[in-house]
Amino acid sequence: MSDAYGEIAAIETIRRGLPQPPDGQIWIGDDAAVVVGPAGEPLLLAADTIVEGVHFDFGLVDAADVGWKSLAVNVSDIAAMGGQPLHALVTVVGARAGVIDGLVRGLAEASAAYECAVVGGDLSSGPCLVVSVAITGTMAGREPILRSKAQPGDVLYVTGPLGRSAAGLRALRAEVGRGGKAPAEPGAPAFSDLTAAYRRPAARLSEGLAASTAGATAMIDVSDGLGIDLDRLATASGVGVVIDAVPTAEGATRDDALSGGEDYELVFAARDPGEVARAFQAAGLAQPIRIGVCVLDPAVRREGAKLLKASGWQHRLS
Amino acid sequence: MSDAYGEIAAIETIRRGLPQPPDGQIWIGDDAAVVVGPAGEPLLLAADTIVEGVHFDFGLVDAADVGWKSLAVNVSDIAAMGGQPLHALVTVVGARAGVIDGLVRGLAEASAAYECAVVGGDLSSGPCLVVSVAITGTMAGREPILRSKAQPGDVLYVTGPLGRSAAGLRALRAEVGRGGKAPAEPGAPAFSDLTAAYRRPAARLSEGLAASTAGATAMIDVSDGLGIDLDRLATASGVGVVIDAVPTAEGATRDDALSGGEDYELVFAARDPGEVARAFQAAGLAQPIRIGVCVLDPAVRREGAKLLKASGWQHRLS
Repeated sequence: MSDAYGEIAAIETIRRGLPQPPDGQIWIGDDAAVVVGPAGEPLLLAADTIVEGVHFDFGLVDAADVGWKSLAVNVSDIAAMGGQPLHALVTVVGARAGVIDGLVRGLAEASAAYECAVVGGDLSSGPCLVVSVAITGTMAGREPILRSKAQPGDVLYVTGPLGRSAAGLRALRAEVGRGGKAPAEPGAPAFSDLTAAYRRPAARLSEGLAASTAGATAMIDVSDGLGIDLDRLATASGVGVVIDAVPTAEGATRDDALSGGEDYELVFAARDPGEVARAFQAAGLAQPIRIGVCVLDPAVRREGAKLLKASGWQHRLS
Repeated sequence: MSDAYGEIAAIETIRRGLPQPPDGQIWIGDDAAVVVGPAGEPLLLAADTIVEGVHFDFGLVDAADVGWKSLAVNVSDIAAMGGQPLHALVTVVGARAGVIDGLVRGLAEASAAYECAVVGGDLSSGPCLVVSVAITGTMAGREPILRSKAQPGDVLYVTGPLGRSAAGLRALRAEVGRGGKAPAEPGAPAFSDLTAAYRRPAARLSEGLAASTAGATAMIDVSDGLGIDLDRLATASGVGVVIDAVPTAEGATRDDALSGGEDYELVFAARDPGEVARAFQAAGLAQPIRIGVCVLDPAVRREGAKLLKASGWQHRLS
């Protein structure tokens, strides 16, 4: 769905048309589903798709970038539950000659980076290139961190400044517009931090685990933009949110950070700032950025005294 | 991939570019992957995609048929391991207005029929309609039935006569060609057994379990045609195959049965015909059709004295 209303309506149609989960399971509506595996243990499941012309353009990225991103965005969904990825299934529709090699290279790199085995999938011809990944994950004995358990008074954090992906995309477009060729490989000098953030987004697995250790009450990955993803967390939790400022990366604009999406940083709520600081330090990670607090009135969405708009990409079901 | 060489080459590229599974796991190359779940138990994973203009055409089927089929073909992959489905993730790309309702209705029907919960997925805009499903399954304590363990002397069975789907597709095309409208709902009088086989294929779950009980040594679902799927089983097992005749459904041609594909009957090899008869009878199922035997020479593909050609659809990775 390209418009917010269409997507929300479609997801509601899907939700209403299908049975609801039993107690203790999460189906549609969080970063990943939490189901019961064959041995009775919690199993995480998620799926995320990238489509040529919607999520990427071969004038700006290469096939290895697409392969990397298709897996990394799914790992991010597992990270946002505080889980660890196990296996991925990769479906490729409409790959033209020469695309498969690059896709597989990028997939293999992400698979190694996140220790997530690609164990199967499907291959089909088709009129457009679609790379669809489904992922499994484990909580390894921890409780899944849902979107829905933030409490008034909880402090809100983000694992890094936002807008890098949107700024990177703009830089790539400008370069191509000037007649430059998009750099072919991540190691190339022109492959700046910002364009890397767009072409090779990192899934914040270690940060998700540290947030879990710190007792995070709710968590979501910033796939569609801070505005919309923070709104999702607040809505699911039935709390309001007040942030001090939009944490904006160097080289990015406030709008990139608020609405650009595809940053894949994690936003989480936690009760005890001391625990958060200790957990991230113990894991050898950069401290997360404190952005605000959860408040009692569930209607509140504020940046200081201003209204915080829930704008950004909307195209996700789970 | 629309041609056999292209697909085989692409799958080889993918296989070579990714790590190989540890002993005891099956990744790419069977109906489903057999991996280790979070609690150390066997977990089945598979994915299968259907694409408008490649696998279906809205002149011949409706959105509910597409929803049903997208899940049923995945359940069939679990059935072909002798397993039981647990959960499905459904990704829909490029659904036009009005399509989602029907898709969800068909998905809900298949979900109920096969007791397989739809727990999440993804939704995206896109220039073509793609419905991609990933499925999990359990062996419930049984050994997975691979493609690769048939032995010379094993008897070959198929769970029903073939070619119904291809014949049903032809009947639908003829009806549309005459200016008739494809029947809207399965209950309609014009929704014959053959068109039902094409529009609402059944996954042979109970038959897969009965084959497992009967000690089946190898099994595969007939998704691409008996010729090619039997060749896959024989090649994976390192045996030859000699069949007496192509088991052809009433109203279908020999070519429909051999090369039409999409029948989703199961082909299996078993040592003891008495065990097979008892297991299917005990389960209250129709007896499977004995079609031939496995032989020692791995190069043999024969129907009586004639060469059996491995022709049919080729578009599957797992």
